[in-house]
Amino acid sequence: MRVLGIDPGTTVTGWGVVESIGSRFRHIAHGCIRTSPESPMPERLGRIFAGVSAVIRDHQPEAVTVEEIFVSANVQSALKLGHARGVAIVAADAAGLPVFEYTALQIKQAVVGFGRAEKQQVQAMIRMLLTLESAPPQDAADALAGALCHLQRSTSIAARVAAAEGKTK
Amino acid sequence: MRVLGIDPGTTVTGWGVVESIGSRFRHIAHGCIRTSPESPMPERLGRIFAGVSAVIRDHQPEAVTVEEIFVSANVQSALKLGHARGVAIVAADAAGLPVFEYTALQIKQAVVGFGRAEKQQVQAMIRMLLTLESAPPQDAADALAGALCHLQRSTSIAARVAAAEGKTK
Repeated sequence: MRVLGIDPGTTVTGWGVVESIGSRFRHIAHGCIRTSPESPMPERLGRIFAGVSAVIRDHQPEAVTVEEIFVSANVQSALKLGHARGVAIVAADAAGLPVFEYTALQIKQAVVGFGRAEKQQVQAMIRMLLTLESAPPQDAADALAGALCHLQRSTSIAARVAAAEGKTK
Repeated sequence: MRVLGIDPGTTVTGWGVVESIGSRFRHIAHGCIRTSPESPMPERLGRIFAGVSAVIRDHQPEAVTVEEIFVSANVQSALKLGHARGVAIVAADAAGLPVFEYTALQIKQAVVGFGRAEKQQVQAMIRMLLTLESAPPQDAADALAGALCHLQRSTSIAARVAAAEGKTK
């Protein structure tokens, strides 16, 4: 299974594609969609929509993950983040892909092993798990972590189902 | 000129299309795109995107207005509203239309004549200005008011330019 993780933001939207082959993970690609803070909001959102759509076209994921958000510094930043997040989700939906939402806690738990991990620990762990030469930029690392979280959960559910079926046979 | 106004929300997205013929305004259509609070967010956003795209296809506006927002009850409602607003803007951008943003103050000022007007005053004024049999639902009335605000500003700018050109000739 191939999963695209997205870490949306109006200035930087990180993305990362990971594949699972059996119980192993393979890094496919990652990157950042950047928009200029000086550009008008419609242009910036259009760029995020086009960017996410292009990544989906290029890497053909079967599912998309976006981090679930509950907190924000203030109402203004929440509004802005909501714009970027809504656009990323609708780009995935327009491509006919299922969207899964995980909290930062669930993602860190899945990737680092504990929910209060620092950003740098996530980056380092992503580098190790996907045997990358260098740690990806933070936004891309967070996106890859979201994708890994989904794969890990799907794999463990699949493994559990397989094990249960094995038992009952 | 034909303008589509949008009043975005995750549950109800109001829309309204108004045309200006000289200094007169003509009501073309209005409505609400509704989503179920029980549906998952990607599905709701997909519905808003598809709904706005369909309205654009059906009524062929030349410009789109979306109310600019600064305040919200809390971070959670700002995030949700941001999702809907981002999706509405990106649907207009995807259709190649320019998006104009006006504050509630500017819209009320243009339509009712003062910025602190009540919601019901906006509805009543929209009904009168567009000679409608009954007042449109609040979300659609706000959308129509946004479209009227843009037309009024464009018309008065055009009138001013024409007058200035007349003077210099």
